[in-house]
Amino acid sequence: MYIAVMGCGVVGSGVVELIEKNGAQIAEKAGTDFVDVKYILDLRDFPDRPYGHKVVHDVNTIIDDPEVEIVVETMGGLTVAYNFVSKCLQAGKSVVTSNKELVAARGYDLLQLAKENSVSFLFEASVCGGIPAIHPLADCLGANQITEVAGILNGTTNFILTKMIRENMSFATALKMAQELGYAEADPTADVEGLDACRKICILASLAYGTHVSPVEVHTEGITKITLEDVEYAEDHGCVIKLLGRAKLVEDDKIFIMVSPALVNKTSPLSSVDDVFNALFVRGDAVGDVMFYGRGAGKFPTASAVVADVMDCIRLGKNTKIGYTWGPHADCRIADYKQTETCLYVRGFAKDKQAALVALREGFGHIETLSRKDAPENEIAFITPLMPEGDLREVLLNTKNFAEASVIRVTDY
Amino acid sequence: MYIAVMGCGVVGSGVVELIEKNGAQIAEKAGTDFVDVKYILDLRDFPDRPYGHKVVHDVNTIIDDPEVEIVVETMGGLTVAYNFVSKCLQAGKSVVTSNKELVAARGYDLLQLAKENSVSFLFEASVCGGIPAIHPLADCLGANQITEVAGILNGTTNFILTKMIRENMSFATALKMAQELGYAEADPTADVEGLDACRKICILASLAYGTHVSPVEVHTEGITKITLEDVEYAEDHGCVIKLLGRAKLVEDDKIFIMVSPALVNKTSPLSSVDDVFNALFVRGDAVGDVMFYGRGAGKFPTASAVVADVMDCIRLGKNTKIGYTWGPHADCRIADYKQTETCLYVRGFAKDKQAALVALREGFGHIETLSRKDAPENEIAFITPLMPEGDLREVLLNTKNFAEASVIRVTDY
Repeated sequence: MYIAVMGCGVVGSGVVELIEKNGAQIAEKAGTDFVDVKYILDLRDFPDRPYGHKVVHDVNTIIDDPEVEIVVETMGGLTVAYNFVSKCLQAGKSVVTSNKELVAARGYDLLQLAKENSVSFLFEASVCGGIPAIHPLADCLGANQITEVAGILNGTTNFILTKMIRENMSFATALKMAQELGYAEADPTADVEGLDACRKICILASLAYGTHVSPVEVHTEGITKITLEDVEYAEDHGCVIKLLGRAKLVEDDKIFIMVSPALVNKTSPLSSVDDVFNALFVRGDAVGDVMFYGRGAGKFPTASAVVADVMDCIRLGKNTKIGYTWGPHADCRIADYKQTETCLYVRGFAKDKQAALVALREGFGHIETLSRKDAPENEIAFITPLMPEGDLREVLLNTKNFAEASVIRVTDY
Repeated sequence: MYIAVMGCGVVGSGVVELIEKNGAQIAEKAGTDFVDVKYILDLRDFPDRPYGHKVVHDVNTIIDDPEVEIVVETMGGLTVAYNFVSKCLQAGKSVVTSNKELVAARGYDLLQLAKENSVSFLFEASVCGGIPAIHPLADCLGANQITEVAGILNGTTNFILTKMIRENMSFATALKMAQELGYAEADPTADVEGLDACRKICILASLAYGTHVSPVEVHTEGITKITLEDVEYAEDHGCVIKLLGRAKLVEDDKIFIMVSPALVNKTSPLSSVDDVFNALFVRGDAVGDVMFYGRGAGKFPTASAVVADVMDCIRLGKNTKIGYTWGPHADCRIADYKQTETCLYVRGFAKDKQAALVALREGFGHIETLSRKDAPENEIAFITPLMPEGDLREVLLNTKNFAEASVIRVTDY
C-alpha cells in the first residue's frame, strides 16, 4: 500500500522514519503486503535525507496517482491544509491528519466529504499526540453515554504549572525554561492562553456529543494570571492547579465546555500528571472513570498515532462504517457557563479583613477559608459553596471592601 | 442485529442491561438498525427479570439460529466455555468473551478457529475490565515495537495493598475487609496468589509478542508474604509496593514475564493507582510510556468493554483483517527470569548486624541500606545493585549470619 505525506516538519518526518523503521510489522498488522511512502509534499527539498528523492512540490502529483490510497496531512494551518485535504478526499483517498486546528474548525465538513467519497478521515494524532484518545473515546467506550471528558491537553502549560507547583518557580521563569527546552514557541500565546487546548477539547466534545463545536464558542482562559500564591493556597486545599479542557452534558442536552485553570484534588489521577505529559479523563455511564496518559506531543509519539490511523485505513478499506461522525454546528447547543454550578477558589485583599470576611460569609452563606505561610495581613483566600458561576460572580461583585485578585474554578475530581 | 449472551451472572446481566439502556446509541454507532439480545443461555431461570423470557437452556438454540450473528460468552470457566465458544465460531458466529481463563489457556486455538471461519473472536473485557487495554495495545499502538507492558491487573490485591500502605492495616485485616465489601471471594487464592493477574499478563504478552504464553510458563508470586515492615521500608526508598504483571522483550527475542509484588517509584503514574482501580502501562519504541487507568472489574465497567467488542464485530462484518492474532506456543520463548537483571529489596535479620553488613557489602559490592522507625536491633533492609536475579540470590544464600525474611523486586519505573 502506497501512502503520501503532506508536510515534512517534525511530525511528518517522524511518520516517514517510523514507517521506514517498523514497516514490516506495520504492514503485517494492517493485513497488507507492504506500506511505503511514495511521495512527500513540501515546499522545501531535503537532498541530504535518505527519503529526499520522494519529495514533490505539487499536490496534484499525489492526487493524480491512483496508487496512493492514503494521504497523511502533517502541514498544520488551516487554509491550504483544508484545500489539499478536501481534494484528496474528493479523489477517493483516505486522509489521516495530526492537524487539530483543521479538525476543530472544519471537522464536520471533512467528515461529510469523506463519507460522500466512501473513504476515511481519521485524526487520532490531533488530540493528546501519541496517547490513544479519539479511538478509545469513540469506539472502546462506544457503549457508554459520555457524561464528561476532561483533559490536560497541552504539555507546555503543564510543564510550566509543574515547575510552579514543584519548584516554586514563577510563571515567567518557568515559561523561559520551557522555551529554552524547546517545549514552548518564541510566541507562546497559543499554548499559555489556552487556544491549543481549546482546539483539542472542541474535537473531543464534537465526538462525545455529536455536534460540531467550534473554538469560537468556547470560554477559554490561559494560565498567565496564575501566581505562586494561588499554588500555595491550592496546596492548602489539598489540590494542584492544572489547565483543563472540559466538556460535559448538562440540562436540556446542552454542552458545558470550557478551557481554564482548575483546582484538581490530589486524590484524582489527573493531579499527578506532570511535566509535558498529557492525560484524558473520561466519565461514562457504564465504565465509570477512565484515564489515558502519555506524551501529548513530540515527533515519534505523534507519528505513532498517525501511523495507527494509517493502519486503520488499510484494514477498513472501503468499509467506512467505523469512521467517526458528528453533526453540524447547532445554535444554542453550548450552555452558558455562568449558569453551570461550580465552586470557586478566590484570593483577594481587604483593608478591613474581619469586615470583609463577615460580608463574604453573608453573601455566600458559607466559605472555607484557606491559609498560607507569610501571607500579607490583608490577604484573604477561600473556597465558595457550589452555585451557578454567575451567581458566585455577582456575590463577589457586590461584596464591599474586598478586591479579588484571583478566581479559579474547583473541579469535583 | 441479534446477539446471544451465554452466562447470566454479574457481567452477562450487565451486558443485557447495558444494551437495553443504551441500545439506540449502540446500534447507531455500530452502523446497524438495532442491537437486541435474542437469547440468554443459563442453567437457571430468571422469571422475575424483564428479560426472563429470553432465557434458554440449550446452546443449540443459539447455534442453530442463523439470525444470531454474535455470541457473548460470560460464563467463565474453561471446559464448557471452550466447547460452546468453539461451536459458535464453527457455526460462523463471531464471539466476544470476558473470560480471561479461556483466552489465557486457549486463545491461540480460538483465534485460529475464528480465522478459519471468517469471524471475529474478541476479548477486550478479559483484561482490565472496562479500561480499553487490548484494543489500544493491538491497534492504537500497532506502529510501535512494544518494549514492555506492566499492569496493576487485579483490583482485589490492589485494594489490600492500598489499605496496608495508606492505613497501616495488616494483610489479614485488609483481606477480611475486601471480602466483606465483596471485592474478594470467600476463597481468595486466585487473587492473592497472583493467578488472576497471571492470566491477564499472559494475554497481553501473547498480543504484544506474537506467541501464545500460557500461565504455567509464568513465574507467579502473590502478596500473602508482604508485611507492614516491607511497606515502611519501601516508603523509605520512595516507593510503594504493587502487585504487577510484567512482560518485556529481552535478549534473543525472548520474553521476560512475571507476576510478583514490586517496588514502584512514587514518581511513576502506576504508584498512584489505588483501591480497586487497575492500570496498564505500555512502553513503545515510538510512543514512549503510556498508561490506561480505570475500573478493572465490576458489572457495568466490564459490560462496557464487552459491548464495545460487539460493536466492533458489527462494524467489521466479515472483514476479519482487524482481528487480533498471535502464533502458537513456542518452546524456549520464555526467558529464565533468574538471568534477567533486577534490583532486589531485601529485609532480614542478623545476630551480628555489623558483621552481616560487612559480608553483604562484600558480596554485592554495594548496598543501599534502608531504615524505619522502631526497627528491631537485629533487622537489616537494603536495596541491591542491578544484577541478574540468580546472581543476587546466590550472594544472599552465601552470606553468612544473615537470614532473609522478605525479598521483593524493584522496578525501574
